[in-house]
Amino acid sequence: MSQRIPVGIVGCGPAGLFLAHLLHRAGIESVILENRSREAVEGTIRAGVLEHWVTELMREMGLGERMAREGHFHTGITLQYGPNRFHLDMEELTGGKRVTVYPQHEVLIDLIGARLADGGTIHFGVSETAFHDVDTDTPRITFRHADGTPDELRCDYVVGADGFHGPGRQAIPAADRREYSKTYPFGWLGILARAPTSWHELIYARHEDGFALLSTRSPEIQRLYIQCDPRDDIANWPDERIWAALHRRLETAGDWRLAEGAIFQKGIIPLRSFVCETMRHGRLFLAGDAAHIVPPTGAKGLNLAVADVLVLSRALEEAIRRNRTDGLDSYAATALRRIWKAERFSWMMTTMLHRDDTETAFEHRIRMADLDFLAGSRNAQAALAENYVGLPFEA
Amino acid sequence: MSQRIPVGIVGCGPAGLFLAHLLHRAGIESVILENRSREAVEGTIRAGVLEHWVTELMREMGLGERMAREGHFHTGITLQYGPNRFHLDMEELTGGKRVTVYPQHEVLIDLIGARLADGGTIHFGVSETAFHDVDTDTPRITFRHADGTPDELRCDYVVGADGFHGPGRQAIPAADRREYSKTYPFGWLGILARAPTSWHELIYARHEDGFALLSTRSPEIQRLYIQCDPRDDIANWPDERIWAALHRRLETAGDWRLAEGAIFQKGIIPLRSFVCETMRHGRLFLAGDAAHIVPPTGAKGLNLAVADVLVLSRALEEAIRRNRTDGLDSYAATALRRIWKAERFSWMMTTMLHRDDTETAFEHRIRMADLDFLAGSRNAQAALAENYVGLPFEA
Repeated sequence: MSQRIPVGIVGCGPAGLFLAHLLHRAGIESVILENRSREAVEGTIRAGVLEHWVTELMREMGLGERMAREGHFHTGITLQYGPNRFHLDMEELTGGKRVTVYPQHEVLIDLIGARLADGGTIHFGVSETAFHDVDTDTPRITFRHADGTPDELRCDYVVGADGFHGPGRQAIPAADRREYSKTYPFGWLGILARAPTSWHELIYARHEDGFALLSTRSPEIQRLYIQCDPRDDIANWPDERIWAALHRRLETAGDWRLAEGAIFQKGIIPLRSFVCETMRHGRLFLAGDAAHIVPPTGAKGLNLAVADVLVLSRALEEAIRRNRTDGLDSYAATALRRIWKAERFSWMMTTMLHRDDTETAFEHRIRMADLDFLAGSRNAQAALAENYVGLPFEA
Repeated sequence: MSQRIPVGIVGCGPAGLFLAHLLHRAGIESVILENRSREAVEGTIRAGVLEHWVTELMREMGLGERMAREGHFHTGITLQYGPNRFHLDMEELTGGKRVTVYPQHEVLIDLIGARLADGGTIHFGVSETAFHDVDTDTPRITFRHADGTPDELRCDYVVGADGFHGPGRQAIPAADRREYSKTYPFGWLGILARAPTSWHELIYARHEDGFALLSTRSPEIQRLYIQCDPRDDIANWPDERIWAALHRRLETAGDWRLAEGAIFQKGIIPLRSFVCETMRHGRLFLAGDAAHIVPPTGAKGLNLAVADVLVLSRALEEAIRRNRTDGLDSYAATALRRIWKAERFSWMMTTMLHRDDTETAFEHRIRMADLDFLAGSRNAQAALAENYVGLPFEA
């Protein structure tokens, strides 16, 4: 049986890894348990738009070197509806803030490498992970190592950074949590293509056929999405059908044309909003997707996970170093205030930009008026921009 | 049979009266037909918040004298939710614009008086008003005078400024118009009370029991509203029950207290959003409530009616004076762009501030996050303020 460690973390995603790094910087050790293999974690290609303060934090923690080299700083986004195309200059609208397009799995590769180089412990490929005694002072996590050996982490605090389907949230008694959710009646079909860059920044398009999003990964690789039925089978979408839909939905403004290329990955994801209140039970704390899901339209998922653990790491440090638990007591409330604002923003972007056949004709027109107002109002643009680059942290 | 007149207007509300004045200023005569008596029109007490440009327009037209004396300039509004109260300084947020609280019936009294003093014709108490031949060059309006005598107006153009229930909209063939609507599952119970002023500006409050609105008519007379079931009977609301609800919903922030007084008017109104596209058929044009309804939360009804006829009066002048009809051809599209923005704003204010039991728990939390974001974001406040004081007119 292993010795008692300050913080046991389940989940080697953005929440778990940032937390381990932040605690390490404060001199507090932790162990991460992850049920997937390192290769699977590092190889699952996911988009990523990092808020301004997240890139600052990574730089400050010495984790920003490759991001500075390979990430793309975006100073704005392009929005389209019908024949209208307009540009939001985030940098100008927010007084100098910008976002970085640097895929989530690249962030994970950098953080895993640095964590292991720091002598940190990450157990990949574990199974049967379970939280125990979380409402006592001696919480435990039991699991099996990749080779099948059973083991146990005895901890001062345990963290469920284990995603929507992990055991963390379930370890809070159902009667003590309230869950809020919305399942959208549409999903995203995403592709990766070897194609030249068609536009210098992200394009978010609302088209009568549905939403489309263009983003660039590198001068050679493009990531594109189209709204689709979330229950559709990707087999119904041969490449030509995908390109036809992309051309139709994106080429509505002027004579701009989308460059095609070979599609080397494609898949369909559903869109969902979800929040679990509370995010704490005894000595168990939830962070990231374990407690909340946002649809990808606002690009807030990773950023929100990092925001959670920034608050949590400070609270844990205060508790472990100075025996003060106010921070832990207010963690859920503090995190949830930011989470609901991000949920609001993600919901707003999603409803504004997608075709929703469950809406009434009146509601449809309200969405179009949202875009019309946004196109003409610098104040509305600035309100969108401040969310996009990341809201300030409350005191 | 009367001689041919340039513009025949049905409806002596804000749209019809402002149109008659604007046309008169351009040297174009018109006749207004109104089915209510002058006393009924002038005596129906209605709230009124005038956008900045409307008061400027009234002043410019020589109609602003009594308003300047008796209206209340409001430089801001107060918003409340739960224990939170915050102030939006409209003047500061919009670079010097403000709204004027001057009830709609006072505006009508001023405009009717001035119209008659100018030698204009308004037939009150008419009946059986009907539009004819609106898709020809010689549209007509038939009606009966108050004494029962039948009459006819032969016109160059006819305007349905006759409200939601008037014959104007119905004179457009059903196949040529598309109607958008939303009926909210709540209404407003409004009172007038002889009571001292409790707060120096409007308070919009969201409470778990429902919306409440405090406004002041004069140092002695207050106008207050509470959200209620739109099908409820006012008989179910004795004065003490109304005051109890107002105290509970409004007194949530600090130790501020609402002053009571004798209620001398009370009633329940439903809340509805409605837009008719198109607003033109041949030589018939719709303006104001005949074409669109907004819930009162955004205080946009009167302002939107005046905006319609500002566009329409210029287009009619161009057509009558210079024989150019482009303005008339684009009237509906131009007016509808502004109308949809006002519909959006009114819908947004309404959904953000009312309790809606048909919403999911997730949607309810999104509304609270709207308020939370608004309370903390100057950009969001400025976006609300620019709508509240009146959006700029598009070129």
